[in-house]
Amino acid sequence: MARALQLARGGRYWAMPNPHVGCVLVRDGQVIGEGFTQPAGSNHAEIEALKAAGDARGATAYVTLEPCSHHGKTGPCADALVVAGVSRVVAAMEDPNPQVAGQGLARLRAAGIETECGLLQAEAERVIPGFIARMRRGRGRVRAKLAMSLDGRTAMASGESQWITGPAARQDVQRLRAMSCAIVTGSGTVLADDCALTVRAGELGLPAVEAARASARQPLRVVVDSRLQVPFGARILNADAPTLWCHDEALPAPPLPPGADAQATIETFGLPRGANGLDLALLMDALGARHCNEILVECGPRLAGSLLQVGLLDELIVYMAPTLMGNLAQPLLHLPLSQMADKVDLELADVRRVGRDWRFTAMPRY
Amino acid sequence: MARALQLARGGRYWAMPNPHVGCVLVRDGQVIGEGFTQPAGSNHAEIEALKAAGDARGATAYVTLEPCSHHGKTGPCADALVVAGVSRVVAAMEDPNPQVAGQGLARLRAAGIETECGLLQAEAERVIPGFIARMRRGRGRVRAKLAMSLDGRTAMASGESQWITGPAARQDVQRLRAMSCAIVTGSGTVLADDCALTVRAGELGLPAVEAARASARQPLRVVVDSRLQVPFGARILNADAPTLWCHDEALPAPPLPPGADAQATIETFGLPRGANGLDLALLMDALGARHCNEILVECGPRLAGSLLQVGLLDELIVYMAPTLMGNLAQPLLHLPLSQMADKVDLELADVRRVGRDWRFTAMPRY
Repeated sequence: MARALQLARGGRYWAMPNPHVGCVLVRDGQVIGEGFTQPAGSNHAEIEALKAAGDARGATAYVTLEPCSHHGKTGPCADALVVAGVSRVVAAMEDPNPQVAGQGLARLRAAGIETECGLLQAEAERVIPGFIARMRRGRGRVRAKLAMSLDGRTAMASGESQWITGPAARQDVQRLRAMSCAIVTGSGTVLADDCALTVRAGELGLPAVEAARASARQPLRVVVDSRLQVPFGARILNADAPTLWCHDEALPAPPLPPGADAQATIETFGLPRGANGLDLALLMDALGARHCNEILVECGPRLAGSLLQVGLLDELIVYMAPTLMGNLAQPLLHLPLSQMADKVDLELADVRRVGRDWRFTAMPRY
Repeated sequence: MARALQLARGGRYWAMPNPHVGCVLVRDGQVIGEGFTQPAGSNHAEIEALKAAGDARGATAYVTLEPCSHHGKTGPCADALVVAGVSRVVAAMEDPNPQVAGQGLARLRAAGIETECGLLQAEAERVIPGFIARMRRGRGRVRAKLAMSLDGRTAMASGESQWITGPAARQDVQRLRAMSCAIVTGSGTVLADDCALTVRAGELGLPAVEAARASARQPLRVVVDSRLQVPFGARILNADAPTLWCHDEALPAPPLPPGADAQATIETFGLPRGANGLDLALLMDALGARHCNEILVECGPRLAGSLLQVGLLDELIVYMAPTLMGNLAQPLLHLPLSQMADKVDLELADVRRVGRDWRFTAMPRY
């Protein structure tokens, strides 16, 4: 199962909106086939492993997620395992997809296959947190990426900020983008940096074949632009990736930039006002409905602070550069607290060095 | 020599103003005696090791610092090694003390003892950086300790700050105090926290005997109080430790609090104004003249920022708590920079977990 979990991560850049799953077939103590989820519409992990094995009769299948029982773009994997004559299936966890939810295992049992569920479940849940979140609550997992100096500053007062962190951290961010279904930013960041927010094959630091597959699919770019300040020429509106252009619904939808590309890749989306700018919970629900598992937020202190204050941030990834930018520079988060009792405690899940910088992965304790 | 360096650290809480040194005597591949520097006025490392060995004839002595050649409170260790009949002395580094500076080794060679110098020198220099700094430039090593949230804030806007960090970090700070000759703070911190800045045996987390020895000597407390705002009742003026009360020399020296204790433990010190408040370089020179090797600064953002801006900070130790205090809270350092080109780059020498907090040891690159 540990090997299956390792394999599962191999699919994290292209399986979406499917969960990335790993499968290992074992017979007589020998691995006879392995596989992981291929890009959406192509083979699931179980089919890849069966293909690799050729003859899988009498084998045990270790899968990181319960085999599916429904017809999606591919046939049910449970049926494929039955047909292949597998004698036992060990799943790390039940599929949280209500279309499956135990039916895959039931189908196997009905065909006389021995089943087990729950082996390394906690580890398996950590592999596909976005998919699980979307299945359980209708919204994917929202992760904000921030880059700061040791004294917690993200840009000079003037807005000057490139580059705080080093090349290794920027490569790490490219990989975060590649494993995300959507990348959310605010108009302030677009106006300051004119960022494209695309996945660039050459900056992933992956083997060429993997980099090509990871960048073939571009995440949906989402720009929160309540007052419609983003100009037509902004790179975030270019044709390199689809863009959801969110604005205050009280304003008329903006005209799209001229050209067939813009018509095909840009969609406008009016949102009502919430307590803190546009209603971001509604936005996250809309992204859930669009099958977004992992949602990466790359924005300034204001939007990130708003997401935190309304309880929508599941995770913070903070890159800390070994430098001091001083007390006039911009804060990490716009979070106007006045008492120690109001401070937001964090669970630090991971701290590691990334090149010359340090990366903190933290979950707010709401 | 690695063992001798390990032993040397054993003396770091009480050897000052002497450097803490370790010594290992080896004969025929066997360790026959070990020792490290005892409290000032008592035995040096070599004497301790010779005592432990009893008969050290023909042995090799590994010492982390060149044996002294001058009469201080104790006799020259070089002479003791000669008398004991040691045949070879390996020192990690020459003594930077101009009263020694190679004369200890010369004395040994003159007595027919084989000498070597430079084994693990870089490691040895890292054991006694304060002593080396004082010998080389007349000023000890200045280290600022700061505690912040992940977003780089040290207190709420109101001044509320206790406790940002957890018990393990506070114990770590007690040990930093115990290895320091002086602890510098500002009137703002005294007025906000009424801190005593003493070493408390029960909070060091050391074995009882070691804790008692470490707290028997209290570091000199130094309060930078240019406008003489610290009241008589402040704990920093109590009799638990000596205090140097620094003020603007344009003001008359303050009267001391009544009582024989205050007369004995408090000294006032008028300083001229520099570019950024009182002339802190002069203060550090004065502490150097008082044989202060390691100087710990525990203060607010303003004094720490001033020390950094005038290039007097050798090291920053920052404890980061897993929490967010928001953008209204006080900055890590008062450092008014406006351009990325002005940022202060740091060399991160050490990053480690201390209880639930993280500790960064960083050297500013001036």
